[in-house]
Amino acid sequence: MKLEVDYVSGKTRIFGIVGHPIEQVRSPEMFTASFENRKADAILLPFHVLPDDFDRVVPALMLMPNLDGLIFTIPFKQRAMALADVIGPNATIVGAINALARQAGGGWTGEIFDGIGCVEGFRQQGITFAGKRVMLIGAGGAGSAIGVAVAHEGPASIRLFDPDSARATDLMDKIKRVDPAIVVDYAEPDCDGIDILLNASPVGMLDDSRMPISVERFDPKLVVFDAIVKPEMTPLLQLASKSGCTFIQGRQMMYGQISKMTDHFGIPAPH
Amino acid sequence: MKLEVDYVSGKTRIFGIVGHPIEQVRSPEMFTASFENRKADAILLPFHVLPDDFDRVVPALMLMPNLDGLIFTIPFKQRAMALADVIGPNATIVGAINALARQAGGGWTGEIFDGIGCVEGFRQQGITFAGKRVMLIGAGGAGSAIGVAVAHEGPASIRLFDPDSARATDLMDKIKRVDPAIVVDYAEPDCDGIDILLNASPVGMLDDSRMPISVERFDPKLVVFDAIVKPEMTPLLQLASKSGCTFIQGRQMMYGQISKMTDHFGIPAPH
Repeated sequence: MKLEVDYVSGKTRIFGIVGHPIEQVRSPEMFTASFENRKADAILLPFHVLPDDFDRVVPALMLMPNLDGLIFTIPFKQRAMALADVIGPNATIVGAINALARQAGGGWTGEIFDGIGCVEGFRQQGITFAGKRVMLIGAGGAGSAIGVAVAHEGPASIRLFDPDSARATDLMDKIKRVDPAIVVDYAEPDCDGIDILLNASPVGMLDDSRMPISVERFDPKLVVFDAIVKPEMTPLLQLASKSGCTFIQGRQMMYGQISKMTDHFGIPAPH
Repeated sequence: MKLEVDYVSGKTRIFGIVGHPIEQVRSPEMFTASFENRKADAILLPFHVLPDDFDRVVPALMLMPNLDGLIFTIPFKQRAMALADVIGPNATIVGAINALARQAGGGWTGEIFDGIGCVEGFRQQGITFAGKRVMLIGAGGAGSAIGVAVAHEGPASIRLFDPDSARATDLMDKIKRVDPAIVVDYAEPDCDGIDILLNASPVGMLDDSRMPISVERFDPKLVVFDAIVKPEMTPLLQLASKSGCTFIQGRQMMYGQISKMTDHFGIPAPH
């Protein structure tokens, strides 16, 4: 018979993930671990909000002085942008936020971290995008955020592919808005003259044994990234590994994102 | 480096304690332990709500489908009553609730458990109030809730004392509303012809070495209760112990209350 738990008290700072549906989210267990790792007395809870209640519930949650931040997932990433007083550079271009943080001086800052997490995953492996020639496959939600975040890092060029060419065109415009100096084009997946290959398409997810690009082998100097979290080693990453390439997994992007979002939430990394 | 915690996920059911101030509350650690003991995937968080925001924030929280209950503390116990669709027998008389639970079929049930916790603490020691002659010292918030809950148990008589005679008169009226057959009177603290002595006054709290009643020794057949949680053994309980009386501590009322409120929240005790 336990009389008290040690992970929540009246002093615990509250964070939440807002979504519909909510049961499948993994943020509560992962962000709360990130807070614990940084010695913060804070917890992240699932906040199930129905779409019709969003405008009533979320601004009300933000009135609680001990609630310091919210994560937004499907279907709220676009709508949540209206709640931010200050909008970060990625969210400004993407048109959506996935994190809203109470600022020390009052007000709330919104930013989208999906792409920032990818850049952080690369940075943790000592790889930068500056001056690099990038091929990005997939211009959906994840692909757009990755394209915009990578564009902020000053690559020489970004080649895009998405079967939906309108989506690809839209992302090309966004990249140009970030940095008009980047050479942007639309082409079928290809590795010729490419330094970094990024897959942000769902091809290779779960039991899908397909590759998002038709090649037999990669140049070992190519760096290969896959945004897919399950499986950890997609067919694309298996080929990258076999070819002797440096590769970065979806979970490294995920941990990079958690780290940058925990920073955004005002919980500093321990010294 | 922890990647996940095991005490919260997207499926965790949410409960909260609503108050202002909030940092001093002990419900989060104690109720979450009670939920864990009953093998429920549920957590109770501190929800800091400013008095001016109450009417906007609390009904909004109740719109979240994965929030199953709220506890109310200072200064909201009276105001919270308006949020209940069904009001329990104690709250109806006391005019305040401290717990609001989502009902399986929709709607919310409110009840006040301070007094119910006292009765439960006695029940767990095998002591009932039916037919007993009770002396109750203190007719404030805790005393009123205790008086009303005890009145529901069919005692023969309740003698009341509070230095504020208007408060005492008000509680006498409430007891009569519960059960007109109970003999109720107002008198200085006294143990003559009394079976159960209840202290719900703050006399004896923390470093206060006073007794709420002037006696040298108790009849060993008297049952003595003190609502004070700190210290565990008040001067009153020390004398009860020395006199060979059965005595019940404030923390037994507190655990009785947690148990009954966890039932109210729809989390059944394990078989």
